[in-house]
Amino acid sequence: MDKIGICGGGLIGASWALGFSSSKYKVFVHDNNKKVRDKFLEILKSLYEDLSIIKNISFDEIESNIIICDTIEEICTDSTLIQESIIEDLELKKAIFIELEKFSNKETILASSSSYLLPSKISSQIIHKNRCIVAHPALPPHVVPFVEICPSEKTSDVTIQKAKKIYKSAEYIPIVLKKEIEGFVLNRLQGALLNEAVRLHEEGYASIEDIDVSLKHALGIRWAFLGPFEIMDLNAPGGIKDSFTRYRPGIKNLAEQQNSIPDYSDNYILKLEKEQRLRLKSSDRDNRIKKRNKLIALVRKLKLENGE
Amino acid sequence: MDKIGICGGGLIGASWALGFSSSKYKVFVHDNNKKVRDKFLEILKSLYEDLSIIKNISFDEIESNIIICDTIEEICTDSTLIQESIIEDLELKKAIFIELEKFSNKETILASSSSYLLPSKISSQIIHKNRCIVAHPALPPHVVPFVEICPSEKTSDVTIQKAKKIYKSAEYIPIVLKKEIEGFVLNRLQGALLNEAVRLHEEGYASIEDIDVSLKHALGIRWAFLGPFEIMDLNAPGGIKDSFTRYRPGIKNLAEQQNSIPDYSDNYILKLEKEQRLRLKSSDRDNRIKKRNKLIALVRKLKLENGE
Repeated sequence: MDKIGICGGGLIGASWALGFSSSKYKVFVHDNNKKVRDKFLEILKSLYEDLSIIKNISFDEIESNIIICDTIEEICTDSTLIQESIIEDLELKKAIFIELEKFSNKETILASSSSYLLPSKISSQIIHKNRCIVAHPALPPHVVPFVEICPSEKTSDVTIQKAKKIYKSAEYIPIVLKKEIEGFVLNRLQGALLNEAVRLHEEGYASIEDIDVSLKHALGIRWAFLGPFEIMDLNAPGGIKDSFTRYRPGIKNLAEQQNSIPDYSDNYILKLEKEQRLRLKSSDRDNRIKKRNKLIALVRKLKLENGE
Repeated sequence: MDKIGICGGGLIGASWALGFSSSKYKVFVHDNNKKVRDKFLEILKSLYEDLSIIKNISFDEIESNIIICDTIEEICTDSTLIQESIIEDLELKKAIFIELEKFSNKETILASSSSYLLPSKISSQIIHKNRCIVAHPALPPHVVPFVEICPSEKTSDVTIQKAKKIYKSAEYIPIVLKKEIEGFVLNRLQGALLNEAVRLHEEGYASIEDIDVSLKHALGIRWAFLGPFEIMDLNAPGGIKDSFTRYRPGIKNLAEQQNSIPDYSDNYILKLEKEQRLRLKSSDRDNRIKKRNKLIALVRKLKLENGE
């Protein structure tokens, strides 16, 4: 099976390692911090607990597909794809891409897990820009099967198609942006919703608890299965054309009201913190993360069982 | 048990009837169209199929709690709450509220299911404005347990608290807006996301299929359990305060880019229709609706089983 290189052994790197190794890839992992390398299998095992809800594979089998490497060179040699997953710092990523290019083959795809840095910037210092993409996963990446591939202007179509195929073969569901944009698709959609949530709260229309309820007990429950355009297709008897024609005045009217920029002042953030702590304890945070991961894995399982 | 009046026997009225009757309320339904009245139990039975995934109650028991009435007067007399669910037309709703006020008791709550008309407008022609609210359900309302209560300036606190208690007792999860605003919470959040989805598509960054995938296989899968403020609380080690402080520049930067108003021209809507029909057949629409309802009921069940 093909070799995958993982550069960076934190939570994102470990999630990629789990995803690829559980799909029978040989995964070579490097982190320049020895402590991270030493703890890597332990982190992997804790993530495996959630993954085992979805995938029928033993941890021993996963472990047998993972090689932890002391040098960056080892993860590059003959790799089909290298997934860079170091911290979000443009200068560090630019530097590491020079290393990855130096040690990898001419066909190796260099993918960054960045959630907001543009591929044209990350690859600006290397020669083979055609082989570079951003491939951004969604949190929590060990149970959410999504990856958005963002090419730069210089990325070749061969690279995009090959990357898509590799992620699919590892059971990710890839999307491909047609050109680069800040926030890609996922964080732009999320940001639009978050900014409106904050406007509603800041201007005194609803509590943060009630806004959370609107998402998790109404919108989110259908968005777990249907995107915005699929929903519009079901919202009027004549399908998407009928829906958009019918609801166009209302949707445009909302857009006109939703263009203020919340200021996110320190005072406002303190107010958020205060309101949040009345309903959710900080000490309970780890349990809430654990529960989130488990529930997401259970929905993923339910979707797979229903052919989604 | 208390009596609930349902005014309007379409899909929304039938969903409310199902929700209240399956929680042991006596439900009195009126529609001014005899054909709708005659078909009402049939529609109810088709919705019951999804509900039975969540609630352990027989259709016979539900049916025994439903009385279909020939006159509007019958659904009003001694009702605790009347849920108006006629078509979205302000003048018709204003006129029907005059009727509902005329025949109901002095304590009866008059609730409109409107998705966008303001309670101050709907109740503008009646005397007891203190008893009026909008109580907007979420589609598909027979399996999504959510209702947003929007008061006008004239609505009394007694009405709001009583309404909240009634919906809770019928196993809905109510939220309460602090003051009225177009689109309430649900459609404002949905509209913000939809407008950004359209910008991304219209400006050529992604296909409608890929945007749909980003929602249903990534964002939606976690939004089925967590609202935006709960997510921010989990996104940085120091909780919501840490998250907002960390990500503030990025979120504000996105807000600044997300204020254009998509034009939703006829040509653009035709383009959407064309792209949609390449992936989703119109003839398959009924099956897709059926599947949506079933999957939502299954997630609702999964949430209930996990104490959500």
